[in-house]
Amino acid sequence: MEDDEQEDVGMGGGDHRDDEEEEGAGDGTIAVARCAEIQNAISVGANSFLFTQYKYLATFTAVFAVVIFLFLGSVHRFSTDSRPCQYTTGQTCKPALANAAFSSIAFLLGAATSVVSGYLGMRIATYANARTTLEARRGIGAAFATAFRSGAVMGFLLSSLGLLVLYATIKAFGLYYGDDWEGLYESVTGYGLGGSSMALFGRVGGGIYTKAADVGADLVGKVERNIPEDDPRNPAVIADNVGDNVGDIAGMGSDLFGSYAESTCAALFVASISSFGADHDFAAVAYPLLVSAVGILVCLVTTLFATDLFKVKTVRGVAPALKLQLVVSTVLMTVAALVVTFAALPASFTLFDFGEVKQVKNWHLFFCVAIGLWAGLAIGFTTEYFTSNTYSPVRDVADSCKTGAATNVIFGLALGYKSVIVPVFAIAVCIYVGFTLASIYGTAIAALGMLSTVATGLAIDAYGPISDNAGGIAEMAGMSRRIRQRTDALDAAGNTTAAIGKGFAIGSAALVSLALFGAFVSRAGVADVNVLNPKVFVGLLVGAMLPYWFSAMTIKSVGSAALKMVEEVRRQFVTIPGLMEGRAAPDYARCVRISTDASLREMMPPGALVLLAPLVAGTFFGVRTLAGLLAGALVSGVQIAISASNSGGAWDNAKKYIEAGASDHAKTLGPKGSDAHKAAVIGDTIGDPLKDTSGPSLNILIKLMAVESLVFAPFFAAHGGLIFK
Amino acid sequence: MEDDEQEDVGMGGGDHRDDEEEEGAGDGTIAVARCAEIQNAISVGANSFLFTQYKYLATFTAVFAVVIFLFLGSVHRFSTDSRPCQYTTGQTCKPALANAAFSSIAFLLGAATSVVSGYLGMRIATYANARTTLEARRGIGAAFATAFRSGAVMGFLLSSLGLLVLYATIKAFGLYYGDDWEGLYESVTGYGLGGSSMALFGRVGGGIYTKAADVGADLVGKVERNIPEDDPRNPAVIADNVGDNVGDIAGMGSDLFGSYAESTCAALFVASISSFGADHDFAAVAYPLLVSAVGILVCLVTTLFATDLFKVKTVRGVAPALKLQLVVSTVLMTVAALVVTFAALPASFTLFDFGEVKQVKNWHLFFCVAIGLWAGLAIGFTTEYFTSNTYSPVRDVADSCKTGAATNVIFGLALGYKSVIVPVFAIAVCIYVGFTLASIYGTAIAALGMLSTVATGLAIDAYGPISDNAGGIAEMAGMSRRIRQRTDALDAAGNTTAAIGKGFAIGSAALVSLALFGAFVSRAGVADVNVLNPKVFVGLLVGAMLPYWFSAMTIKSVGSAALKMVEEVRRQFVTIPGLMEGRAAPDYARCVRISTDASLREMMPPGALVLLAPLVAGTFFGVRTLAGLLAGALVSGVQIAISASNSGGAWDNAKKYIEAGASDHAKTLGPKGSDAHKAAVIGDTIGDPLKDTSGPSLNILIKLMAVESLVFAPFFAAHGGLIFK
Repeated sequence: MEDDEQEDVGMGGGDHRDDEEEEGAGDGTIAVARCAEIQNAISVGANSFLFTQYKYLATFTAVFAVVIFLFLGSVHRFSTDSRPCQYTTGQTCKPALANAAFSSIAFLLGAATSVVSGYLGMRIATYANARTTLEARRGIGAAFATAFRSGAVMGFLLSSLGLLVLYATIKAFGLYYGDDWEGLYESVTGYGLGGSSMALFGRVGGGIYTKAADVGADLVGKVERNIPEDDPRNPAVIADNVGDNVGDIAGMGSDLFGSYAESTCAALFVASISSFGADHDFAAVAYPLLVSAVGILVCLVTTLFATDLFKVKTVRGVAPALKLQLVVSTVLMTVAALVVTFAALPASFTLFDFGEVKQVKNWHLFFCVAIGLWAGLAIGFTTEYFTSNTYSPVRDVADSCKTGAATNVIFGLALGYKSVIVPVFAIAVCIYVGFTLASIYGTAIAALGMLSTVATGLAIDAYGPISDNAGGIAEMAGMSRRIRQRTDALDAAGNTTAAIGKGFAIGSAALVSLALFGAFVSRAGVADVNVLNPKVFVGLLVGAMLPYWFSAMTIKSVGSAALKMVEEVRRQFVTIPGLMEGRAAPDYARCVRISTDASLREMMPPGALVLLAPLVAGTFFGVRTLAGLLAGALVSGVQIAISASNSGGAWDNAKKYIEAGASDHAKTLGPKGSDAHKAAVIGDTIGDPLKDTSGPSLNILIKLMAVESLVFAPFFAAHGGLIFK
Repeated sequence: MEDDEQEDVGMGGGDHRDDEEEEGAGDGTIAVARCAEIQNAISVGANSFLFTQYKYLATFTAVFAVVIFLFLGSVHRFSTDSRPCQYTTGQTCKPALANAAFSSIAFLLGAATSVVSGYLGMRIATYANARTTLEARRGIGAAFATAFRSGAVMGFLLSSLGLLVLYATIKAFGLYYGDDWEGLYESVTGYGLGGSSMALFGRVGGGIYTKAADVGADLVGKVERNIPEDDPRNPAVIADNVGDNVGDIAGMGSDLFGSYAESTCAALFVASISSFGADHDFAAVAYPLLVSAVGILVCLVTTLFATDLFKVKTVRGVAPALKLQLVVSTVLMTVAALVVTFAALPASFTLFDFGEVKQVKNWHLFFCVAIGLWAGLAIGFTTEYFTSNTYSPVRDVADSCKTGAATNVIFGLALGYKSVIVPVFAIAVCIYVGFTLASIYGTAIAALGMLSTVATGLAIDAYGPISDNAGGIAEMAGMSRRIRQRTDALDAAGNTTAAIGKGFAIGSAALVSLALFGAFVSRAGVADVNVLNPKVFVGLLVGAMLPYWFSAMTIKSVGSAALKMVEEVRRQFVTIPGLMEGRAAPDYARCVRISTDASLREMMPPGALVLLAPLVAGTFFGVRTLAGLLAGALVSGVQIAISASNSGGAWDNAKKYIEAGASDHAKTLGPKGSDAHKAAVIGDTIGDPLKDTSGPSLNILIKLMAVESLVFAPFFAAHGGLIFK
């Protein structure tokens, strides 16, 4: 408790209503009751939104499962006859119709698991929000432990659930498939498609929801009315808090679950058509599952470093504690991967490398896991450098606020563009090493390596919005300044960890997509994807355009929904007497409804774009154009996704840097309400849709298009290319 | 003169000092003398900047010419022996050392022509600026004709000069090469490299110069001091006007000259290794030159439509007159191309299509020219739709200013991203048709088709900055409101045509780059560029990142230089007594110096990035990685270039829309100085570096990397790939 005296976060403005300094004033039973009440409102809002969203998605999922069945069933004209296997010569495989049926089932299972993951994540988070606020009364250490443990619970739950359902699916499908491992693992890829398509809608819908509310609340509240963030007088404040839970938590949970499911499916699929499959060596085929399982155990040990071995005692300790998690999990996992590799794999085995046969040693695969792991860490640290306000990039952005919003935006954009360099080189090294050592399987394994510490990644990522909401609840419940100060400190670290989480997500998405892309090319029987073939080049060019089209839709959706929110919030301030003075309550429900309606309506067109693009390209223009499209979307999407999330993170933290006024430099820019601060708020608002809607959705775009192409590959190979035959 | 009464542009604010309405008050001899004085100041500033820049570039050019000689000379270890030709079997070609020497000479000629083009363009423009202002006293028609004719003079001069020097070079080199056409046209490609490398520095240096001054002038003048644009009290105003001439005119002139030179070189190179070359059919090899030459004649006829057949009489007539130019030149050129194709080409000929031999009919090439032409028109119209304030996209952006700068920026970014869709499909169709009909030669010819109306494109593009400066001079010379109103109307149309010019530039750059890329792959002896090869994929991913890296540098440079300018302008307003009241003159020269220094210093790192990337990739990682790099930079760069220039154009015109207040809707947002207008000014300022520095420089990035790879291809093929052998 004494350590609290060292808290080094200054107070920005003097705009807090509760200025008494003694601990606990206003933080007693009434405050607890208020917290419970607010938590309940948030929980009800989030529940109701997710259930409405899931109702829409249930229809979509049912229709799409039928589409999968019809497309894949048509490959051999719905014949129920067995046919010779594609890779294992001389063996008989199950009919295409069975693959169609099991792919649909796997798709439904993946979708269901994704939805359950998102929902459980939201429940944990909404419960943790208020609890973190209340723990903050006991000090920064207790609050940190609560927020972090809640994130960890979510991380472990999601990764274990994903792994468990996948394992069960393989075992259950195996009862029918028996010796036909080609068909088995081909069908299982439907699981990845199901997971990712739910993730897409979760991210986009949730992203629009949360940012419409956030931008709307900020534009009127902070800019026009000059009331603090999360002030209970702001009618959009509950929608904003609900948004954090449905967008940042449920959306992100589904997203990372999707990456996890897809990379495992890609690796399993490639393994099944290697000598592992031919030899029916289950331990070797299941190597991807083993790596993931060991990863969960490693992450479990790693959390002890944050909650038990090195307890956080001061505000300064929060960011290093989170960073330590990344380093420790990477180091431990490297050791664990070494053990698993030598235990599970034969010393040498063969892979089919696009027609050629390649001899691979087991330690090659260890290198693939390790390069993925360490590249992930490199991406994480780069992201931290560009988005944390302890380094010069964010401080330069804050400094540029002196000359107004325009220079702030110019500097922030440049920062985002620049932040792409190191992650792209890290991904390139992973791809080169993975591919050289073990062909497309190596890339899939590198992706799994990067994701093997996903439980820790999810924990520190979920920690961000939980702390953010804890702060919101403290403000709304009218708790003392000291409490708010502590939750603010947790939140500032959370902004950076959220950016790191997004960095991991995009890095692994790039590797996963490439692995899926390779599996697709292999499954579709394309010998080469030559850029000099006009079909491929046209695909490449249009593919590189898709992330822009998609971003235009999602950014514009947030903008339009935010405009509606602004009008509603303004209307309430004007028409509800006594609202500004705190004598009357705003109509929170109307704002929640605006966000809900906008999100559900606006998530359709971008969703349709992503799901239809591969189907249209494959069906009408053939597998080469589709291959080009996937490669183009991948190489272009990675850049926008990283730059968008880092620009947004930097603007947010530049604003927080000015608000906190913790250094002499920061004090010259502040306090809250100064011209520089106003410019910083504009940058933060612009960054909101970039970092929380369009940017993170792009990971899913590139993964989903790739996994969809893989699932539909047999159809495209048989009937694709109606126009460019 | 009566038609002037129909002028429908409202006056934004009431901030003009000269409010009398009668024609000619303040526009007499004193005003003329003042115009001459200002023109002189601008001309001196532009001259001095260009000479300083050219001094730096002379050193660079000399060094790089030596590098070319050494690299290419080393291909056969500086041997002076003739060797067997690569494509024409059984014939003897000149030694590699001769190709090295002639490539260096061609490089120097290209660089010199580019510099002369830029310089002459600047001279014409600075002369035309004041003349347009003075003609505006006689009415909108006279002013338009002056601005447009000046642009046309520049357009014809540059395209004729480029063609003439290229033709002379071929003829002169032919004296040595005789029958060795392979060596001849290989050496001639150095001309394209010279033209483009000067264009890069011209665009980047000029772009930083002009936008540092523009942003700096606006941030203090318009936002802080509330004085109008181009007010003579603003110390940065002369630097701003100089910048328009060195960036938008000289830079753009060099850029389009470079595209022109490169596409012609690419087409000539490919033609020389076809049956045209083997049969020594000069008329057929010279087909690209013929198409360009006929294009100049067609454009000459087309200008008559604007200046003689359908004279512009009202403000409303300006934009349609410019649009008519595009349509007329396209239609006429289609007919002319048909004639030239049948006159110059044999009915059927063979092309070497990456190892295979392809039979091509002459009318196939006509289709290639035509598809390029019409795709250019489609790109032009799309750009107009997204950047002109007569359509809904810009009006939506203007509308979003009601809720502040943040929504303005969000909507503008989304608009830019969306505007990419149609141009990308247009380019894709061009590539597919060109490639399918006549392989890589078809793509080069489609690029030439798009550029065949370059003289008209340059005319309407140069028209923009000339009108902009004419307005600036009118303001500074204190001419009447009516004059300023007319020049403003000319300028608003100029913003859209500038965006159209950039659309053409990027569209043709994409096609040119692909043609150069194909020529490079062919020359480097790469059989295929398979995306599934990790070397290629890594190149693709890193290549797609380069435009971001480059943009980060250029945007940041403008931002930093603008910050310095802001400080200087603020300092002058504070320290020079009577400046704000118009009693004392500001120190223009210091601002000019800040822009000059910033531009010269900051153009180096992005220039080095573009020039070194292909050399490093080719030398260390080999031709496949380089091929991937080029393809990645191409497909990613096109998107950022289009979106950046359209976002910028839209923000600029949204601001002008609010200022002009020409409709009821616009009036609700204005007048000048309203909150919505302030938000619009912020958007405009953010767009400045995007649309005039980073965006247009990206064309050059993708072209230059491709032509450089082509020139160095013999070296990379012989000694490249030190690391990835």
